[in-house]
Amino acid sequence: MENPNYISSLQNPKLKRILQLQEKSRNRKKESVFVVEGKREIDLLIKANYRIEELFYCEAFHEEDDLSELLTLVKANYPISKEAYQKIAYRGSTEGIIAIVKSKNHNLDKLVFTSNNPLILVAEAPEKPGNIGAILRTADAANIDAVIIANPKTDLYNPNIIRSSVGTVFTNQLATANSADVIAYLKENQFEIYSAILQDAVSYLTPNYQTKCAIIVGTEADGLTDEWREASTENIIIPMQGKIDSMNVSVATGILLFEAVRQRNRNQN
Amino acid sequence: MENPNYISSLQNPKLKRILQLQEKSRNRKKESVFVVEGKREIDLLIKANYRIEELFYCEAFHEEDDLSELLTLVKANYPISKEAYQKIAYRGSTEGIIAIVKSKNHNLDKLVFTSNNPLILVAEAPEKPGNIGAILRTADAANIDAVIIANPKTDLYNPNIIRSSVGTVFTNQLATANSADVIAYLKENQFEIYSAILQDAVSYLTPNYQTKCAIIVGTEADGLTDEWREASTENIIIPMQGKIDSMNVSVATGILLFEAVRQRNRNQN
Repeated sequence: MENPNYISSLQNPKLKRILQLQEKSRNRKKESVFVVEGKREIDLLIKANYRIEELFYCEAFHEEDDLSELLTLVKANYPISKEAYQKIAYRGSTEGIIAIVKSKNHNLDKLVFTSNNPLILVAEAPEKPGNIGAILRTADAANIDAVIIANPKTDLYNPNIIRSSVGTVFTNQLATANSADVIAYLKENQFEIYSAILQDAVSYLTPNYQTKCAIIVGTEADGLTDEWREASTENIIIPMQGKIDSMNVSVATGILLFEAVRQRNRNQN
Repeated sequence: MENPNYISSLQNPKLKRILQLQEKSRNRKKESVFVVEGKREIDLLIKANYRIEELFYCEAFHEEDDLSELLTLVKANYPISKEAYQKIAYRGSTEGIIAIVKSKNHNLDKLVFTSNNPLILVAEAPEKPGNIGAILRTADAANIDAVIIANPKTDLYNPNIIRSSVGTVFTNQLATANSADVIAYLKENQFEIYSAILQDAVSYLTPNYQTKCAIIVGTEADGLTDEWREASTENIIIPMQGKIDSMNVSVATGILLFEAVRQRNRNQN
């Protein structure tokens, strides 16, 4: 007996919706949902308390057994034909599973800290999904308390960010807001603010990152906006000694975060 | 009076040669030349003692005045039409200048160290040009003594590496060789070998990088090949405490190199 949910028609409106959610940030925002592909990513976001709205899977690429737990969890599940799956697959057909997932609210006031002296990263206006993904991976590995994207240029659920973050877009605690609101939030919550700004800066090795603090990084092209200069507890730089002196933003972020982690672990020993 | 070197025909064999050198690693190797676009990159490689074989420039995108020094330096220079330029431009037409440049010999025995205790990086089989570029930028900023690409998957003069390295492919001292030869070279020259290998590893904060040493990094997918395990003075890891624990290879390399630099500068103070 055929599953009444089975989708084979390429004209099925659900497929069209998925394609539009993948392509258009506007649609993701309007509907407060996004699209995720791959078993590993879907398992991660369930653990991170995301709610799956609809699940699409292609038996040609997946043994149903693999998915039985997931299919019990998500009632709105749709087996789809190979052709239909290939129409919506973003990463080629190897994954065999795609979900429409409810977005979380990423307002600043949703941030919750279990530590007394949280360490957070603020990245202002990062543009390339590859860099954002690399930054989120580093933030996860360093196990910092939150990542705030200030003046976001793209929504967090851009398919290229999800992919390049290898799921850390779900495991990190994330907020987005404009920079003025982020500054107000940090001040109100007594965070020390260490901004990567060239002017009047000390070496990044100088500050004490063992207190409640935020490390702020801007873009490679423009650095941070002026408002951070006033807000900063101290400006920090990575001293460079080369001929070009230009570093990838995600590399620089990694060096800053792991210096903070180094200091914090030293204190614990 | 028209410059006899002027190229306007899209069928000119020099244009065809440039396109093939951009696209085909094989051709770059066979002819021992590569193609570079952009005034800044060309200025950098001249300073780094590369020899330009032929220079092509488009007056529609460039005031000839800008280039007078360069045109004096390189006798084989060819003004070309806008259409011809657009045919060969890799980065769009904004640069207006392209050169065919003689490759350097990147054998290990060409490496020259001015310091008594050089710090070098070995990256084994890095694949993505963006990661290779980010690693070369970091190596330049940390001002390390050399970068060795072991078991290279691509030639150094791949246009995407040149671009993403923002010229540091020219300013770094670079060598390429298979891993066995790199290991023999490091042993013969008494380098301590700190390999990013998970098994039997200490934290990257443990070793003393103030001696003559090499930091060895592998790929994100496969790590380092087995031969490094035996060769290693000590295996090092960046301790991770997150949910995914996956870091971009260029970020991890930056964290390792700047820890070595931190230790070395501390000693100087």
